[in-house]
Amino acid sequence: MREIRVSAQPLDASGFAPFGDVIETDGRESRWINEGTCRRFDGLAHIDVLEGEGRPLLSVFEASPRALPLRIRELERHPLSSQAFMPLEPQPFLIVVAGDGARPMASRLHAYLSSGRQGVNFKRNTWHHALIALGRVSRFIVVDRGGPEENCDTMALDMDPVFVDLPAGG
Amino acid sequence: MREIRVSAQPLDASGFAPFGDVIETDGRESRWINEGTCRRFDGLAHIDVLEGEGRPLLSVFEASPRALPLRIRELERHPLSSQAFMPLEPQPFLIVVAGDGARPMASRLHAYLSSGRQGVNFKRNTWHHALIALGRVSRFIVVDRGGPEENCDTMALDMDPVFVDLPAGG
Repeated sequence: MREIRVSAQPLDASGFAPFGDVIETDGRESRWINEGTCRRFDGLAHIDVLEGEGRPLLSVFEASPRALPLRIRELERHPLSSQAFMPLEPQPFLIVVAGDGARPMASRLHAYLSSGRQGVNFKRNTWHHALIALGRVSRFIVVDRGGPEENCDTMALDMDPVFVDLPAGG
Repeated sequence: MREIRVSAQPLDASGFAPFGDVIETDGRESRWINEGTCRRFDGLAHIDVLEGEGRPLLSVFEASPRALPLRIRELERHPLSSQAFMPLEPQPFLIVVAGDGARPMASRLHAYLSSGRQGVNFKRNTWHHALIALGRVSRFIVVDRGGPEENCDTMALDMDPVFVDLPAGG
């Protein structure tokens, strides 16, 4: 039996660009507002919500930590919206993505480790794993889409077993 | 000279309802997702973005702490969208609002203290003060509107001086 192991890479905007946005302030442009008491970092995520009968939805997810290495059985995608996650405490978490193909393929799997000050915004239709908190119960603010239409496809990976783990040597 | 002092009240959803949403999980309904590893608290804020040429904008604000009591000179409102703030670390902050009248009136001023686990979402057209961080530099995730149309009115309060402070006895 062939087993695939994927080591996470540190999350950075250029590497993650095919899958979506990294929501972070380090190294980003900002402007001063409120009489110089506040820096505003604008447009850190491309919120892409197909309207139909739906609208942008702001939620909080409270996720239990997962043990590593984590076996990746299935991924999900949202055909009607992007989906943004930003940690509400600076706690690292793992991100697993596999592009926007017709089905999630192990050969296209990438894993990233957020510093905890970084969030992500998955592009519409990008295959990704459900939230992977690490270390302790972690809260995230989430922006996706609410509405009567179904907005979540789940599909098994084409191979099993596949495991993700922390960055090599990390 | 008449001086007005407004003591903040602890932020709670029912008291704040005329001005917008309290973004919090304590006492709210949730559902289990991701095979029981995650609780999802849905729709904690009514994201109200008039489309036009604009779209929902996700940003991060990094605010310097303000000294109290704070003199309130002017308020702002956003005619084209709601504006949501959620602290990215559990750090208390102050919220000052004054309804949706034609201009901000000192007699309609209310101040609230967030526990730091609570965010707020101002309704479209609700007068509010710019972000008031307390104690240390504080980061917030913000959801409002991006687009070419101007989306911020500012106007002086009808009275001066007006000061806000922490809850009495707090």
